[in-house]
Amino acid sequence: MKIEPLDDRVLIKPLEAEEKTSGGIILPDAAKEKPQQGEVIAVGPGRTLDTGERAPVAVKKGDTVIFPKYGGDTVKIDDVEHRIVRESDILAILE
Amino acid sequence: MKIEPLDDRVLIKPLEAEEKTSGGIILPDAAKEKPQQGEVIAVGPGRTLDTGERAPVAVKKGDTVIFPKYGGDTVKIDDVEHRIVRESDILAILE
Amino acid sequence: MKIEPLDDRVLIKPLEAEEKTSGGIILPDAAKEKPQQGEVIAVGPGRTLDTGERAPVAVKKGDTVIFPKYGGDTVKIDDVEHRIVRESDILAILE
Amino acid sequence: MKIEPLDDRVLIKPLEAEEKTSGGIILPDAAKEKPQQGEVIAVGPGRTLDTGERAPVAVKKGDTVIFPKYGGDTVKIDDVEHRIVRESDILAILE
Amino acid sequence: MKIEPLDDRVLIKPLEAEEKTSGGIILPDAAKEKPQQGEVIAVGPGRTLDTGERAPVAVKKGDTVIFPKYGGDTVKIDDVEHRIVRESDILAILE
Amino acid sequence: MKIEPLDDRVLIKPLEAEEKTSGGIILPDAAKEKPQQGEVIAVGPGRTLDTGERAPVAVKKGDTVIFPKYGGDTVKIDDVEHRIVRESDILAILE
Amino acid sequence: MKIEPLDDRVLIKPLEAEEKTSGGIILPDAAKEKPQQGEVIAVGPGRTLDTGERAPVAVKKGDTVIFPKYGGDTVKIDDVEHRIVRESDILAILE
Repeated sequence: MKIEPLDDRVLIKPLEAEEKTSGGIILPDAAKEKPQQGEVIAVGPGRTLDTGERAPVAVKKGDTVIFPKYGGDTVKIDDVEHRIVRESDILAILE
Repeated sequence: MKIEPLDDRVLIKPLEAEEKTSGGIILPDAAKEKPQQGEVIAVGPGRTLDTGERAPVAVKKGDTVIFPKYGGDTVKIDDVEHRIVRESDILAILE
Repeated sequence: MKIEPLDDRVLIKPLEAEEKTSGGIILPDAAKEKPQQGEVIAVGPGRTLDTGERAPVAVKKGDTVIFPKYGGDTVKIDDVEHRIVRESDILAILE
Repeated sequence: MKIEPLDDRVLIKPLEAEEKTSGGIILPDAAKEKPQQGEVIAVGPGRTLDTGERAPVAVKKGDTVIFPKYGGDTVKIDDVEHRIVRESDILAILE
Repeated sequence: MKIEPLDDRVLIKPLEAEEKTSGGIILPDAAKEKPQQGEVIAVGPGRTLDTGERAPVAVKKGDTVIFPKYGGDTVKIDDVEHRIVRESDILAILE
Repeated sequence: MKIEPLDDRVLIKPLEAEEKTSGGIILPDAAKEKPQQGEVIAVGPGRTLDTGERAPVAVKKGDTVIFPKYGGDTVKIDDVEHRIVRESDILAILE
Repeated sequence: MKIEPLDDRVLIKPLEAEEKTSGGIILPDAAKEKPQQGEVIAVGPGRTLDTGERAPVAVKKGDTVIFPKYGGDTVKIDDVEHRIVRESDILAILE
């Protein structure tokens, strides 16, 4: 069974806040209002443009992304909290 | 007799909150602000684009969906509370 | 003499709240914030799209519809309160 | 001398509130928040669409219309208060 | 030297409030919230549409217009207060 | 070194408030809420339309413009406060 | 490892506030509400237009830009606070 996000939504598994990425980027848990890192688990088909077509989502499954700590929705999968956010709320991809 | 939602609205029969899906996704009732699962009972024709055409709705009858606990409208059918929400409020499909 | 709604407005004669439809749908009067049923009496030409054309209204005279208890305007015709609401506020058609 | 409304504005001469139309439609003065009847005196050229063209106004000089009691602007012509409202605020035409 | 308004702005020289127009239209100064009359002194090129073209302004130099008493900006020219308002705020032309 | 404004922004050097222009236009400093005069120092490429093209900015370097006293941003260049405002906030050009 | 901003976002490394640029532009730290200077580190692909295409971002890696002191998000890279802001929030490029 899997979750298939709608519209331009993205399902994200947040990384532990104390985790330090290899490139030296730290997003400490103490800084509550700071953005968070996470792994993209599933991606929606993209938002519908005025032309009726879908704008492709700029992140893909497996990407590590930075996203705001608040906003979006929370769902629990196998006892782990995941986040569903809109693509437009994701700040950046870590490569 | 049946209910035919208008625009991009979707009629949903909420699943019992304590129900655990086979894939291990739990959306506990205690977490009042958490999204809810439900079964899609009927789907509107989709919202009208600026071009005058309808954008097809991304969910279909029988889908299990995750949707916000609040928002939308409530109607009672055969003594069971149902929800009418807009497609854009539905977070994801469970497959 | 008749009322001809403008834009995407719809003139509705509300059904008695205690009325139970044949399909078992009840919208009790006690639940003040719940949507209401009514009969469509007259329908406007539809809203003007950016292309200058009118988007046809999805309900027609004689339809039984579900619409929000509040919002829109109230006019009295032959001592009976009617409602003028926009098409986009109507939730569903009962068939 | 005459008043030529701009954009999609409509100049309306309100009917006396106690006036009862032949079809039995009453909009009593006591119900302060209720819509009002009036006669259309002059009509603007319509709002400019994104295409640069004007959307024709759906009411014409001489129409009896229902419009909200509040909103729009008031001007005095020959000691009679008139109203200037936007077309989109007019609810319906009485025929 | 002259003032050339930008966008869809219009430079207006307000008429004395107690002035009564020949057609019997009075906009008394006492009614502080009432619209005002004035003479159009200069007109901008019109607002830019999404197509990149300018929508022509519906008033021209010399027109007598009715406009809201508040809103827009005030500039003093030769000791006389003038108003700069957007075309969309002007209610009507007096002819 | 120079400042190159982005989008439809315009860099303005405000004129001394007590300065009287030759045409008799005064914008006294005492009237704190009144618009201000200034000289255009640099102009951005214009805002991007929905078509992807830039709408040309209606003012050019050297123009004397009237702009609101508040709003926009302030930067100090050679100890003189300058303003960065959007084209849409500029009221008029003085010629 | 690098950060790849999404949409029209720009990653900026703020310059020390007391730093004086060669052209005499000072943006003192004391003036808390004043805009800030910074160096562009990475640029997103641009926002998606209604046509489905991307509007190219007007700044590039290495540019020195002026941007508002507040707004956007903060991330820490190698112990240095960086900012992620939208292109539309950047005021100007210093050349």
